[in-house]
Amino acid sequence: MAYNIVSLNELTAQFEKLPGIGKKTAQRLAFYVITAPEEYAKRFAAALTDARSKIGFCKTCQALTDGELCPVCADGQRDKSIICVVSDPKDVLAFERTREYKGVYHVLHGVISPLDGIGPEKLKIKELLARLSDGVVKEVIMATDPTVEGEATASYISRFIKPMGIKITRLAYGVPVGGDLEYADEVTLQRALDGRNEI
Amino acid sequence: MAYNIVSLNELTAQFEKLPGIGKKTAQRLAFYVITAPEEYAKRFAAALTDARSKIGFCKTCQALTDGELCPVCADGQRDKSIICVVSDPKDVLAFERTREYKGVYHVLHGVISPLDGIGPEKLKIKELLARLSDGVVKEVIMATDPTVEGEATASYISRFIKPMGIKITRLAYGVPVGGDLEYADEVTLQRALDGRNEI
Repeated sequence: MAYNIVSLNELTAQFEKLPGIGKKTAQRLAFYVITAPEEYAKRFAAALTDARSKIGFCKTCQALTDGELCPVCADGQRDKSIICVVSDPKDVLAFERTREYKGVYHVLHGVISPLDGIGPEKLKIKELLARLSDGVVKEVIMATDPTVEGEATASYISRFIKPMGIKITRLAYGVPVGGDLEYADEVTLQRALDGRNEI
Repeated sequence: MAYNIVSLNELTAQFEKLPGIGKKTAQRLAFYVITAPEEYAKRFAAALTDARSKIGFCKTCQALTDGELCPVCADGQRDKSIICVVSDPKDVLAFERTREYKGVYHVLHGVISPLDGIGPEKLKIKELLARLSDGVVKEVIMATDPTVEGEATASYISRFIKPMGIKITRLAYGVPVGGDLEYADEVTLQRALDGRNEI
C-alpha cells in the first residue's frame, strides 16, 4: 500500500543527509530534481563527484584548493610574513571577502574539544609550526572562533609560538558593526568596553 | 585576488538552483559535500542521475513512478471507480499518508493559470477524460488546491465530466484540525460555518 518509488526514496535520503535539510525539505528538493530538465540532474551529479574528487588541501596552508597550492598561497603578491590561523576552510573565504587582509592563512581543520574527542594531534598544528621555522613569518594572527574551544585552541598554540620570538595577536572583541546594543550579551559588551579606543 | 576554486563554485551554483536554497546555504552544503566521505558524493551523484532517468509518469494516472504504472494503479486492491484529481504529484503522497483513501488518482501536473501562460491544454485533462469513457468510474473527487486557480481548474474540468453522468465532488472546506481559530482567515471561517454538521 505504501507509495514506494525506490530511486525517489534514495534521492530523498541523500538530500536528507545534508546539514540543515529535514525530511520535508529533502522531499521537496528531490521532487524538484526529477521534474527539472534532465540536463540539471546530470550537471549536478557531475559537479558533486568533480568537486569531491578534485578538491583537496593546500600543501602549505591546508585551505581548500583544486591545485597543489590554494589561490592565496599561489599569489606572489600576498605577504608571507603574516599568517592568519583559522579553524575552518570557510573562515578563509570570510576573510577574503573583506578584501583588506593581505597576508596568508593556516587552516587548523577544527578546534581542540576534549568532549568531542578532538585533541591537538588531530589539528594541523604541526604543519603550522613547521611553517614558522624558516624565519620569514613575523606575525601570527589567532583567528579561531570567539568560543571557549576557539580560545583554548588559540592559547594552546600560542604557547608553542611565543618561544620562537614571533608576534602573536588575537582578533579584537567588541560589538558587531550594524548590531543592536540592546541585544548584545554582557560578555561582549564588557569586552567592547575593555577594548575601547580614543576617537 | 579572488578565492576561486572552479569545481567548488560549480557545485555551489548547482545547489543554489534548488528551490529555497540561497547563496549562503548553497555554499554550506557544497562545503559539507567536499569534506564528507567520498562515498557520499558518489552515492548522491548516482541517486541524482538514477532518479532523474528512471522516474517518469504513470501511463494511467500521470503520477510519478519508476515503472510503467504507479504503485497505486498497479495495486489490484484499489477501487478503480473513484478518481481523486490532484494538481501535483506531491499531493498523491499527501493523500496516501492518510491511509484512508482507497481509490485511485489522476495528476493534472498544474492548474489553469492564464497569468503564467498555463492553459487547459498544458494539463493532463485529455488523459483524465479518456479514463472516464469506459464506464468504470463512478465518482471524480476534485482535489486541486483550495486557491483561485485550483477552484477555476476544478470547475473548468467538471463542465466536461457532468454531461457524462459521473458524480463530481470537491474536498470539504473548513478549519484545519489542530489549527487555532484565532488565526483562521475570514473566508475559511465562513466556509466552515457554511459546511457545519450536526453532532
